Parts: sequence; structure tokens; C-alpha cells
Amino acid sequence: MTTINTTIDAVTAPDAEARAHDESTTADGRTITAQQLSAGRRAHELDRAHVFHSWQAQGPFDPMTVVAAEGPYIWDGEGRKLLDMSSQLVNANIGHQHPKVVAAIQEQAASLCTIAPQYVNDARSEAARLIAELTPGDLDHVFFTNGGADANEHAIRMARLHTGRTKVLSAYRSYHGGTQLAVNVTGDPRRFANDYSAEGIVHFMPAYQYRSYFGATTEEEETQRALQHLEDMITLEGPSNIAALILETVPGTAGIYAPPAGYLEGVRELTARHGIVFIADEVMAGFGRTGRWFAVDHWDVQPDLLTFAKGVNSGYVPLGGVAISDAIFETFRDRVYPGGLTYSGHPLACAAAVATITAMDEEGMIDNADRLGRDVIGPALEEMAQRHPSIGDVRGMGCFWAIELVKNRATREPLAAYGGSSPEMNRVIAAMKAGGVLPFANFNRIHVVPPLNTPDADVRFGLEVLDDALRIADEYVS
Amino acid sequence: MTTINTTIDAVTAPDAEARAHDESTTADGRTITAQQLSAGRRAHELDRAHVFHSWQAQGPFDPMTVVAAEGPYIWDGEGRKLLDMSSQLVNANIGHQHPKVVAAIQEQAASLCTIAPQYVNDARSEAARLIAELTPGDLDHVFFTNGGADANEHAIRMARLHTGRTKVLSAYRSYHGGTQLAVNVTGDPRRFANDYSAEGIVHFMPAYQYRSYFGATTEEEETQRALQHLEDMITLEGPSNIAALILETVPGTAGIYAPPAGYLEGVRELTARHGIVFIADEVMAGFGRTGRWFAVDHWDVQPDLLTFAKGVNSGYVPLGGVAISDAIFETFRDRVYPGGLTYSGHPLACAAAVATITAMDEEGMIDNADRLGRDVIGPALEEMAQRHPSIGDVRGMGCFWAIELVKNRATREPLAAYGGSSPEMNRVIAAMKAGGVLPFANFNRIHVVPPLNTPDADVRFGLEVLDDALRIADEYVS
Ligand SMILES: Cc1ncc(COP(=O)(O)O)c(C=O)c1O
Ligand SMILES: Cc1ncc(COP(=O)(O)O)c(C=O)c1O
Repeated sequence: MTTINTTIDAVTAPDAEARAHDESTTADGRTITAQQLSAGRRAHELDRAHVFHSWQAQGPFDPMTVVAAEGPYIWDGEGRKLLDMSSQLVNANIGHQHPKVVAAIQEQAASLCTIAPQYVNDARSEAARLIAELTPGDLDHVFFTNGGADANEHAIRMARLHTGRTKVLSAYRSYHGGTQLAVNVTGDPRRFANDYSAEGIVHFMPAYQYRSYFGATTEEEETQRALQHLEDMITLEGPSNIAALILETVPGTAGIYAPPAGYLEGVRELTARHGIVFIADEVMAGFGRTGRWFAVDHWDVQPDLLTFAKGVNSGYVPLGGVAISDAIFETFRDRVYPGGLTYSGHPLACAAAVATITAMDEEGMIDNADRLGRDVIGPALEEMAQRHPSIGDVRGMGCFWAIELVKNRATREPLAAYGGSSPEMNRVIAAMKAGGVLPFANFNRIHVVPPLNTPDADVRFGLEVLDDALRIADEYVS
Repeated sequence: MTTINTTIDAVTAPDAEARAHDESTTADGRTITAQQLSAGRRAHELDRAHVFHSWQAQGPFDPMTVVAAEGPYIWDGEGRKLLDMSSQLVNANIGHQHPKVVAAIQEQAASLCTIAPQYVNDARSEAARLIAELTPGDLDHVFFTNGGADANEHAIRMARLHTGRTKVLSAYRSYHGGTQLAVNVTGDPRRFANDYSAEGIVHFMPAYQYRSYFGATTEEEETQRALQHLEDMITLEGPSNIAALILETVPGTAGIYAPPAGYLEGVRELTARHGIVFIADEVMAGFGRTGRWFAVDHWDVQPDLLTFAKGVNSGYVPLGGVAISDAIFETFRDRVYPGGLTYSGHPLACAAAVATITAMDEEGMIDNADRLGRDVIGPALEEMAQRHPSIGDVRGMGCFWAIELVKNRATREPLAAYGGSSPEMNRVIAAMKAGGVLPFANFNRIHVVPPLNTPDADVRFGLEVLDDALRIADEYVS
């Protein structure tokens, strides 16, 4: 467990070196005032006294202070400007403080902040309409939650009641949320300490080509063998017992590994054949991150349930949800859906979603993400891979990219073990921060996940800083 | 399950009769414009097409539209003004659209909408400081969640890891939330359809004097027998296996039945004696609802973990959390807490909490709630009980009251069975709406739970409407 801590700690806490480098309180015309800085110091003290943080050992943790944010940038407790190549937890798809979304929140706050889920509210109705319109096929009904974990919890409940079955298949190397059921279906080390009440949860091996669990050497082989494995699992668990299969369309924190060609279509076919509800978790991959509104759009696959959060309103107000197919809706037409929450369809959150989706659309952010992936990020990372022997794999799409750092390309030995961090990775991360970039890192990977509307020049700046930092990683290559 | 639907439906959908009574689009100087009404109609159409509602059968449901809200009032889709005696889902403790809280949300939106949980943020720090200050004893560390369900999920996880044990005791006639683990520990019919993965969850009989599970006839007897029962349960389940006991300090939706004198102290003593973590669920009872900051303050009992949501910011922005004792904090000082969520400590939600707590304090809302309970609501309900034979029991404190409607005081036969609704109850509810009051009803109970700052005259108006409606209930008394 200490390993988990170290990793996340390393990602998030500024290193002493980076701090020492910084004195400026002004950057690019934005002034961070002495007052903001002193408020930040006071906030840091109070934080250490009273805030209990996610996924942390609370004692050794020295969190970075954020005093301001704008577009793709944030300013830390010393007034230092950092490019947010993490989009926070890959949620701020439109960047920080988008003026239209800020205005929409302010207007909704002025008119109606809260209303219970059982009433009709215009912000909620409009958000549901937009999401129904954007999601593929007949995913026309929207159940709103507060975030991604509860979206997945409710999706699984719907699937269980719809099918009358209890088992749930989910992939290793996945993340589905922090509440009990969501963490049970999760397939990453964050689940290890939480293995309670996992009744009926079964994990299968994902299609993950770079470190194939099937000894596959080509994409075709990976697809074919991963689907065979899944089919075998279904047979061996008993198809008539399986309520749902939950899968991140493009797994995010677990490594941004898009499914090989044909895999998703195969999953769709297998689940349909056995009456298993296919839940696509698009909490991280959805709302433009991959250069399409939803990642499933790349493969033209329609799940039965699609869960979302994060990008739906860039996290400006907590919101998540489940888009529901007509068939599953029918199950709950005359039968009570036995689930709910006080803030389902919260007006402030929904108004932020309407404004976010509108801004994304009007400002062409989805196409921009696609273009950034094709023309800027992808080529730059591929080119870096030519020069940096520490890069074992480059993969991604849109504004959703990962590189795996390795000590040896032939053995693919990672620069940090699965589930942990390493001094090597910590040095790379520290160098990125010192260079003015806030990275997203996990185990031996650096993710390049900026806001979808980050100007090209800023993306290039971030990539240059990464490029520089990789010289450190190269030192460990043998 | 249809019974659950009927109940909730009845609480929330306006009856045709009430609709027919209404034509006014102006009330008390507030004009609901034709535009608002037509937006409301459009919202209703879209809602039926695309919004999937909590705890409902989606088909027969005809939800009420809300086009505006202010103070203790809301306006429905026909422009009709209704006194919100429900505070929505008992969350709007400061009423609707409190100008200071609206302004605080708008200001925070202008400065910083979203930041990941691993950073320091001033709104989050200040909210944590205030909550640490207000909660009793050494509950000085705050883990923020999005709502009540995830607060309880994380509290249970903390207790399990702190104790190294897995079982959790919880009371029947309780509600702890809609996600899997939270609904497992719930003890009301909403759990019936969700009995998956309830490994280690054990329910005990609560101290509920009006319908004593122990044949008790006095408060003293109820306390003594309920504690004996709990002690027996602990013995029979094995004290060394039990991680936590979770209990609503004053159970809310399940009936606003405050514990009899001595009960909570006894629970504290029993749990302490066996090293069981005592989790007080104050999601509904907390933040002034009972006329104290927290319900536990009435009995001077300090739990190990206290969960909150709703009142913390009146639900203006989704927020919940766990206040954590020093001892449990210590467990996670050097050990990773294996749980989290993207929106933990959301700045907008925390800024709303700071403003709400400040307004409650500055405007004396807690004392006002206490006074309303003692001088207005309590006496009025007691007086009604003299005249209405349908009132079987009157109980409550602060702005947190329930009456049980019965067909016969001697047999205590309820006007609607446990878990269901009835035509009789539906008539009472409809009459209240027709009279201009939005009630909170559950099974055979009407709850009187207005915002804590509702002016006395409005509270009296609501009580008069209730008084009138009870004539209908009296017709069924035999
Ligand atoms: C794919 C995926 N699913 C679910 C979640 C959980 O979302 P939340 O943190 O809002 O509960 C996340 C969060 O990172 C995620 O990436
Ligand atoms: C006592 C209690 N606990 C927990 C919850 C769950 O809170 P939420 O609906 O925000 O998940 C509720 C909601 O009504 C509640 O009343």
C-alpha cells in the first residue's frame, strides 16, 4: 500500500527542487497577488490540520497549493504557472474557468440552486436531451448521479434487475470508482485493500497489446485471443448467470490502451449473444477526450448502458450519469427502479453540462482534440520515441495519450513496477514540474491529457518539457 | 415494489385536483412569467422523454414541474406557489436561493470551479476548518464526498480498515443511501430489491418507542430493552468481528424517531467497550435540523465518525463527507487510505458550505429551529393531536417533526402499511397540496420539515393546511 501512496504522492506533490526554482508571481499578464499567496499559505496550514485526502497516507503528504487556474494553466502556492497536462483528474476537458460555463453556473445559481430529483427542472431536462442526442443509438434516457463511481454502481444495478442475474464481468487494468461496488469491479491496485463483498464480481484479462496476456504478437492476434479468452470466461462462469460486462471503452488511468481493431465489436457481439448487458464506462474517455463525443464512436459500437462524468461538465460541478437504452428503460417503465440519490439531476451541475456541451460544440473542441492527436501530440510522441530509448510504447488518440517508460525495450521492464512508483519515475515527474508542466503519471507511465482546447503552442511547450525530462529516463536504460 | 412507487409518487406528483385549483401566476409580489411557464412545459416534455428518475417506475410517473423557488416557497409548473414543508429532500435547511450563498457560489465560480482532490484549495480548507470546529470533540479531520451515500460508504471502509474487522451493524428502519454498500446497511424497503453482496451486514432492531419491538411501554423500558437487544446482537455476532455500528442519530425518512433518553449514551458505551467504530449518520439530522448543529449534541455523545451531506450547504452544490476522530485519522497517517473520488472537496461545493454555515451562524438559524420546534411546531402538533383522532404519535425537535396517522389509536393500525402508500394517505397529501403546501410523506407519516429560517407566519400557515387535511384522515378512524 505504501507503493500506491508513493505513486500518487509523486504525481501530485511538488518536489523541493521545483519549488526552489520558482519565485515569479506574475506570468503571461496574469498577476498572482501577495494576498492570493498568503491565502494559499493559510489554506495549506488548514489543509494539513483538517482535510483528509483521497488515496493518501495523510501524514507524509505535502500537497501542492493551487491559487488560480485559467485555460490550460494553473498557478501553485508560490505563484508559479504550470501547464495542466493532466486536466486535473482528466476531467477539465474545456480547460479552467471557461467564461461561458462560469456564466451559466452563475446564472443558474441566481435562478435555482437545488431541487429534488422527483421534480421537473429545465436545466436537468435540457442536459438529458443533449446527452441523449449525443450518445449513440437508442441511449435516450439519462439517470444522473454525482460522479463516475455512483454512475457505475447504478448501471450495474440496472443490469442486474434487467437480466435477473447477478454476476458482473470486468477487466483487470481498469478503474471504475471508489465506492464499494465500483471498486470491486475495478481492476487496479486501488482495489487490493477493498476486497469486501465482491460477490459475483469476476475479472477477465483485457486486450492490452503492449504486454499481451495472451502471448500475442500482432494486433489481429491480440484481438482474436482476447475475445477467445472472454468467450471462455463466459462459458466457464455460465452465460446465464452473467448480468453485465463493464469495460472502459479506452481504459484511462490504467494506461490509455485503446482496444485493438475488432475487439469492441467482438465484445458487443459476445454480450448480445448471451443477453449480457454491455456497460461502457466513458467516465474518462467520454465527452470529446478521444476526439469523438464518445470513444465508442470510433468503433461504431452501441453499448446497452454508457456511464459518464468528468468531461460532461468538465467537473465544474459534480455530475455523472448513466445513458440508458430503450430496452433497459422498458424494464423500469412499470417497475420501480430501486435506486436514487438526493442530488440526482442537480440543476447547477446540469446547467454546467448544458453550457459545457454547447461550448464544446460551438468551439469545435471535439475536432480540435482529434486534430491535436493526429497532427501534434501523436507525431511528437512518435518522434520522441525515435530519440528516447526509455519510451517503450506510444499510444492514444485525441487528447488522450500515454507513453510507457521502460528500462529495456526488448524486455519491456517498466521504470516502475505495476502498482508502484520508483525513484526513476519520481525524477522524471519532478523534472516536468520544474519545467513548468503538471503531468499525469501512473506507475511507469506518463499520460499526455491536456484540455481539448489547449492552444497548439502550449501543447508543444508541454511536449518539449516532456522531451527534456525523458533524458532522465534514458539514463536508466540498459 | 409497486408500493414503493406509489408512495413516492404520491409524495411528489401533483394531483389533478390540485392542478385544477390553480390559475394564478402571481403570488406575494413574485411574478411567474408566461415565459417561465412555457419553459416549464417544454422542460416537462423533455423530462418525460429523457430523464430517468430516482426510486420510480418511469412510465406512470407524472412529475411536478418547479419553475422557481425562494425562501421557503417553490412555484410549480402552473405558477402556483407552494410552501416547501419538505425542504426538498430535507436538505434545503436555509431555504431556497439564500442571497449570501448564491453570491458565494457565483464568486467561487468566477475564481475557481474545479481542482483535483490532491491539491490544497482555500474553499476546501476553510470548509474543513468550520466543520471540524462545529463537530463534537476530536472529529477534526474531514473527508469530503459528493453526497450522503458515499459518505457512509467511506465511513464504513475507514472503520473496517481501522479495526481490521468486517461486520457492520445497522438498524432496521433507517436509510443510509442508494449505492450498493449504503443500501445494504439501509433498513427500509428501498433495500429489498437490492440485496446483493451484503456480506457482513447485520441489522438490529432500533429503539422506536411508538411501535416498540421489545414490548416496552415506557421510555425507560424501551431504552433498557433496546440496549439489551443490541448487546445480545453484539455477543451473538461476535464482538471481535464487528467493525462498525452505523446509526442515524435521529432516523429521518424512516420516521424522525429520536432515541429515548439514555439510548445513544448506551450505544456509545457498548461500541466503545467492544472496540466497534460508532458511525453517526447525520446526513439528514445534521447542520441545524434538530435545533443543534448536530443531533448528537442533544445527548453529548461523541461518535468516532460522523457523516454529513444535505444541510452542510443546503444542497446548493452536491457535497457530503465524513468527520473523522483523531484515533481513526492516526490509522491513516502512515497507511494509505484506499478510497477517493474525483470531486472530493470540490471548491464550488465547499464555498457553498462555508457560506451556508456562516449564514446559519450569523442569522441564528440553529436557535430559530430550536425555538420553532419548542414554541410553534411542537405545541401546534400536540394541540392537533387533541382534535384529530387520526394522529397516533407526534414526535420531533427543531424543524424535524413527524406525525403517524392511524386508523385506530389503540391498535395503532397505520393509515398506510409499512413500505407502501394508501388511497387514504394520498387524499391527505393531495389536500395539503391543494391547500398550498408541499409535504414530505412516507408510508403513514407526514413529516413537518420546513427550512430552519421559515418565518413563523409561514410555518403556522403550513400547520393550518395540515390541520385541515387531517380531517380527511379522521374519516378513516374507527
Ligand atoms: C473510467 C473511470 N470510471 C469511473 C471513475 C470514477 O469517477 P469518480 O471519481 O467521479 O467517482 C473514474 C475516475 O477517475 C474513471 O476514470
Ligand atoms: C440519513 C441519511 N443518510 C444518507 C442519505 C443518502 O444521501 P444521498 O442521497 O446524498 O446519497 C440520506 C438521504 O436521504 C439520509 O437521509
